[in-house]
This record gives sequence, structure tokens and C-alpha cells, in this order.
Amino acid sequence: MNLNDTISAISTPIGEGGISVTRISGSNSFGITEKIFFKDTARNRKISIQETASHTIHFGYLFDGENQIDEVMVSIFKKPNSYTGEDTIEISSHGGVLVTQKILSLTIKSGARHAEPGEFTKRAFLNKRLDLSQAEAVADLIKAKTDSAHESSLKQLEGSLSKYISTVRQEIIDATSLIELELDFSEEDIEFVPKDEFRNKISGIVEKLNEIISSYISGKIIRDGINLVISGRTNSGKSSLFNQLLKSDRAIVSNISGTTRDYLQENIVIDGILFNLIDTAGIRQSEDVIETEGIKRSFRKIEEADFILYLIDSTESMDFIENEAEYFKNNFDLKKSIPVFTKKDIGKVRKGEISISVYDEGSIKELKSSITGKINESANVKTGSEIILTNLRHKLCIESVVNSLEQVISGIDRKMSGEFISVDLRNALNYLGEITGEVTNEEILNNIFKNFCIGK
Amino acid sequence: MNLNDTISAISTPIGEGGISVTRISGSNSFGITEKIFFKDTARNRKISIQETASHTIHFGYLFDGENQIDEVMVSIFKKPNSYTGEDTIEISSHGGVLVTQKILSLTIKSGARHAEPGEFTKRAFLNKRLDLSQAEAVADLIKAKTDSAHESSLKQLEGSLSKYISTVRQEIIDATSLIELELDFSEEDIEFVPKDEFRNKISGIVEKLNEIISSYISGKIIRDGINLVISGRTNSGKSSLFNQLLKSDRAIVSNISGTTRDYLQENIVIDGILFNLIDTAGIRQSEDVIETEGIKRSFRKIEEADFILYLIDSTESMDFIENEAEYFKNNFDLKKSIPVFTKKDIGKVRKGEISISVYDEGSIKELKSSITGKINESANVKTGSEIILTNLRHKLCIESVVNSLEQVISGIDRKMSGEFISVDLRNALNYLGEITGEVTNEEILNNIFKNFCIGK
Repeated sequence: MNLNDTISAISTPIGEGGISVTRISGSNSFGITEKIFFKDTARNRKISIQETASHTIHFGYLFDGENQIDEVMVSIFKKPNSYTGEDTIEISSHGGVLVTQKILSLTIKSGARHAEPGEFTKRAFLNKRLDLSQAEAVADLIKAKTDSAHESSLKQLEGSLSKYISTVRQEIIDATSLIELELDFSEEDIEFVPKDEFRNKISGIVEKLNEIISSYISGKIIRDGINLVISGRTNSGKSSLFNQLLKSDRAIVSNISGTTRDYLQENIVIDGILFNLIDTAGIRQSEDVIETEGIKRSFRKIEEADFILYLIDSTESMDFIENEAEYFKNNFDLKKSIPVFTKKDIGKVRKGEISISVYDEGSIKELKSSITGKINESANVKTGSEIILTNLRHKLCIESVVNSLEQVISGIDRKMSGEFISVDLRNALNYLGEITGEVTNEEILNNIFKNFCIGK
Repeated sequence: MNLNDTISAISTPIGEGGISVTRISGSNSFGITEKIFFKDTARNRKISIQETASHTIHFGYLFDGENQIDEVMVSIFKKPNSYTGEDTIEISSHGGVLVTQKILSLTIKSGARHAEPGEFTKRAFLNKRLDLSQAEAVADLIKAKTDSAHESSLKQLEGSLSKYISTVRQEIIDATSLIELELDFSEEDIEFVPKDEFRNKISGIVEKLNEIISSYISGKIIRDGINLVISGRTNSGKSSLFNQLLKSDRAIVSNISGTTRDYLQENIVIDGILFNLIDTAGIRQSEDVIETEGIKRSFRKIEEADFILYLIDSTESMDFIENEAEYFKNNFDLKKSIPVFTKKDIGKVRKGEISISVYDEGSIKELKSSITGKINESANVKTGSEIILTNLRHKLCIESVVNSLEQVISGIDRKMSGEFISVDLRNALNYLGEITGEVTNEEILNNIFKNFCIGK
């Protein structure tokens, strides 16, 4: 965790756009900028950043030696009033891929180190500009694909989870100090809190935390969305349904079995829930090696799926359809799979089952509400004002807190000495502290920040 | 060309990144910002932009009614000191796709109009912050993929072409005024310039302009790169060469004929020249409809190619190879095509021909220099200090200037009256003015700016 050097990265998405921003942060960021930034193309007029006010913007030219790199705007942020809490420069340039890479190279050549993913935010955390759960919210906010994901990450960034954790923490600290006070006076056998009252307090906390833990399933759906796999035999209409749901011609559709070999994958939002829609190769025995590889991948996708639509061609023989229905029942988890009878416009409609035709908008709408209905049922998606856990790490930490508090309760029940109870209370505090980063280590930090994009 | 309303667009590339920038420009951009931007989350503290200095940056929160959208930095640019020359706000937000789109929607809901592609730069041109050739250089700079493209567009942005054009323009204006002075005194039959001297002057300008025109082929290569198509029979090693040139496993390679169906396309730079490398389906008679469609597309790609490698499998029979060599000679333009004998490690090496193996780095290197050698030969690529025309519009304008000046010369030779000559001189001036935008019309502007990205 080297906080002494100066880091640099392209902070805007890579691609062609009007503007790109390259960010430099660290003690030498002003020195590096003064080396490469000029107010005129003759390189006569320079800027003294120390003598310039923070939060100001300056037009000029970047030079790599004698070679002009771009016309740019330089923004100055003096510590501690920057994202990282360090001296920071943002160079706003023309948004080309090559131009921006040249600017990044120039800053590195001039003394900066290329930042690791999330390193700006890591520095913000280490400089106490954000706590750890807020830092994680930054990554979630950037990746948010639905309104509810946006809303929950913004709340977390504003500190809603941190505040909640700090309330619980305070309650445990209060309890701990009473227990420890009792320990100090243990020889005098004074009881500062009646044991019953203390036990109730702790089990009250456990109850609240368990509620938070159970919000995680909805949280995961909010954050990552649902992997929805469309599977079924070849030519059962998978790619047609895929295209219909996307309202595009993404997949090549033909009535030749085996048209789709590699799986295709696209995001859609249905009723505010994000779906990662996956069209797979149809299941059959095939002689074609490339298709066989595709079918192998289909099965892998089915295993990893959060939700599966199993398509059955309703224009086939009654025997075939019965076999398929049987195959579905025996091989799929009914809590997260639906059989869908396709081509109902030219096939047999089965009562009580979901029958669709891509030519019948109404049937597609019904299919959509069957899917979201089943998901909401099992996940109990809420986007109200309570805390929703969206992060696996937070869930695991809170589970550990609950474990430790349950040890506390069983300690009380078994009339164990205050010393043992105190150890479990301290463990609980540590796990809570890991969420906000009051307690942390290099490994936790690396795991968190490696999921960030470069430049944040 | 409505300059009165306020426009807004996302100016950074779309994607996940650390920072996104949404730009608002126009007379109401400050008013819109004041409606949605607050210094605190309770929405008590606002900012008065009129009372705030230009080129300053302000941290705060965007709200859509009661809903917080993001924590942002707002940069203020007061007219005329902005890119567009108008009052401008740049909102720097978390770089997510959804967050950024919410901010754009919020600005539109609050009174801005979504900007058309290039509209910020168009306003910069209309407000005389840039001339037209500089505005075009902005788009070229953003799209630059090689050092020479970057350098030539930056020079043009700094006004190198504009300066050159204005020198030529001045020479023609001088000539015109002499001719027109003569016209005024025509009854007195005074000759202000000897006709010979005048003729020499004009033909000197024509010569210079023709040189500039001939730089266009290199200019096109610098700007757009070369479409290099890899073609040949099935299983001649096209995808292997494609992957080898890219140094990746982009294309699925197998020894099954017809593995590649749809063509694949990637950029590489060899010796500073940008290549758009295209791997096509192998040519053969096929029963497979999907493959047949692929082969049809191969032929289309060959027709559009700037350069073609025709791969011949050197492990095949002598008859087959001779047939292939014959087929190549009869069907390809030898100025822009090379036959390449593949799999030389296990095949027959043909003297005097280019033989490669993807397992022999040296042979790939030789192939590369054969390609660039042939291209440099025909295009005469230069990246020196002279002007290089990279833009078709500029080339067409200069050709029209040359046409008009040739009319002037032929007018002198045919001893036509000064009135006629003067008309041709004025035409030449108009065409020159179209390059920098001194003479322009809605259609020219629309054609130019529609090629820009949104947000620039």
C-alpha cells in the first residue's frame, strides 16, 4: 500500500467520444503537470500550480518534449479537497483512444505510475474520504443497470449502510463495556446488567441482523441481475424467443437445426429486474464437432443459471411433447424453471401451461409476468427504504457477527464467565468493523479493489 | 441552425469508467444547472452561477425532484471562454452507463435539448471559435489510430491547412483586384500587370495546389487505414494467419473446411500504417446455406478491399497449386494483391514467391514488409512537415479551385475579356472559402457534422 508515489490513469471509458479525462493523484501530480503543460504552443508560458487556486480550470497544450500531444483543459484539486484526498490533476482532452493513451504514457514518462484498478478509490479510503462500504458502493453505482441498483448503491454511497452498522456497533460496544466493567469488579461479584436484559438485547440485535441477511437475495438480484437461460431441443424456437424478448435480430434464426452454435448473451430489463438473457445451442445428438462443443456449453449454462426457460415445440407429435414434459420434470428445479410450449399459433395449446408464439405479443407479455412473478415470489424483492444487502462480502461479515453473538447468547445460557463472553463480543465488533473498513487487512482490500475499473 | 436553445449530451464515451462528463451549452445552461444542482443532500444550499467565477469547479449533488441522481463536480465556463463560445456547464459524474443516462435525461427534463452529433463543435464554428477545417480536424483527431493520423489532425487543428489556404487565397485576391482594377479602367486600355506575368503567377498556384491534391492518397491511408482482406480457398490457413497477425485467438481455427462463416474484422498497425484486417470465409462450393452466405460476403469484401492477400496451400498437389496461381493472376489486380503460399514448414517452397508458416516468425515479418513495401510504393506515404490532405471534401474543393484557375489560364490564352477571367477567379476564391467555412451552406455543414460523435 504505497501512498507516497503518484498514480495516473484514464478515468473515462475507453472509446471514441468528445472528451476523455486522465487523472493524476499524489504528491508529485502538480510537478508532473508543470513539466508537460504549457499555456501556448511555443512553450513559453507555464503555470505555477502552487500559486494557482484549487478547483480551477486552465486551457493549454500538452507537450511530450517538442511534440504537441493535444489541446487540453487542466483541473486542479489541492489536498485534502479531492476525491483521493491527495493533490490531484484532471486532464480533459479530445476523446480519442490514441490521444488519450498518448497522454497517459506522457504522464507515466514524466514520473507517474499507472494506477491499479480502483487505486484512486483505495487512496480515498486510506485517506478516510470514504469508508469501505462506501468505496464498494462506488463500484456498484458505476455498474448499476436498473433503477433499484442505482438507488441502493447511491444510498450506500451516502452512508446508509455505514450508519446502520455504526448503530449496531454502538449497541454492542455498550454491551461489551458493561460486561468488561463487570469483569473488572468480578471479585466483588457485582452484576451491572441483569443477565436476562443483556440476553434480550443481544438476541434483539441478532434478529435485526438476520433480517438484513435475508435481504441479500433481493440485493443480489438488484445488483447482478438474473441469469436467464433459454434452453430446449434444436429448433424449439429458442433464438426466435431470444430475439423477440430483445426486440432485435441479434441471433441468426433459421429452420435448420443447429443454427446457433456458440451461446449469445444480452441484457434486458423486465419490470425493473435485470436479466442476462442467454440463448443456447439446441440439445441433440450431433455429428458436427463445433455444434457438439456448443451443446456442451449449453449444459454448462443451464447449471449456472438463476432461471431457466425450457422450450417445447408444440407442433411436434403428442409422444414427443409428453417425453419432453417428462424430461423437464425429471431434470430441472421447478422453483427456478418454467416449461414453455412454443409455436402455439400452429401447434397444440396445452391447458394450464404457458404457451407462446412470437407472433402473439400478448403471449410474450404473459410469459414475462410468469417469470417475474416466480422470481419475486422466491426472492421477495423489495426496494423500500430499509437496508438491502447487495454485497456478498457484507453478507458474510454480518453472518459472522450473528455467529459470534449466538456464541454470546449460548455463553450466557451456559453461565460462562464474562471473559469468554467478552471475547465473542469483540469478535462481533471486528466483523462489523470489516464492513466499513475500521478493521481491515491487505487481502480484504485487494479483493475489493481488484473488481474496480482502472481510473476509479 | 438554431443557436438560441440550450443543448446537452454525454461527452465521454459510453461504457463503465471512473468518470463521465455531461455537457450543457447555451444561454440557459446556468439556469438548468441551478435547478438540479445542490451543495447538500438536504437541498438547502444552492449555487448562484452568475455570481461565481468562470473556470471553477464545484462539488455537490444532482436531484431529479426529491430523488438524488449522483454526487457530481460541476465546472463553469462563461461565454465567450468555452469550447462553444457559449455559457457552458460540464457535469462530471460517476462513470456508469445508467447514472450518466439519468443525468442526461435530467438536463433534458429541465429544459435542454439533446444535442445532435457534432453540435457543440458546430456552435464553436458558428461562434468563430474554430474555422471549418479545424472543426473537421477535431473529428479526425478523435478517430486517429496511428501516430501519423494523430500528428496530421493536430496540425490541422492548430490551423496549418487554414494558414496555407489563406496564403493561396491572398495571392488569388491580389490577382483578382488587379484584374478588376483593369476592368474599371478598361476604356483607357491600361495594363496593370503584364499578361505573361499574371499567367505565370496563376499557373504557379495551380502547380502548388496539384501537389497538395496528390498528397491525398497518403492522407486517406493516414486517416482511414487500409482494408486488408485475407482470402483464399477453404482451409488455406486464413484464420491462422489472421490470428498470427493479431497475436490472439480471435478466430476459431480448425482443420475442418468452412469453420469461418461470418467474416471477422480487427485493426492492427504495421510500420505506422493502420490496417483493417478482414478474415473471410474460404471460397468453395458449399451445400451449407449459412456457409454459402459467408462465401457471398467474402466476394463482397474482396471487391471493396484496398489490399488483398490470396492464400494458397503449399501442401496441396502441384496441379492444384498451379491452378490456384493461375486463378489469382486472372482474377486479382496485381497492384494491390499478393499471392501467399502457406504452410511452408510442411509444404513445397516456391522460389521468388512469398511463402509463410505461422510457426515461422521470420516469414511473417517478411510478409509484413512485402505488404507495407507495396503500399508505400503506390501511395508514396509521407508524414513530413508539408500539408497532407486527409479529407475528401478538402480535396474536392481544391480540385474545383484548380479547375477554375485553369479556366483563368485558358481565358488569358484565348485573350478573353477581364470580366470573364474575373468570374473564374471569384469561383476559385469561393471554393477555397468552402474549406475554411468562410463560404458555406447548411448542406455542407450538415454533411460535416453528421460524422461527429454525439457530445462533441
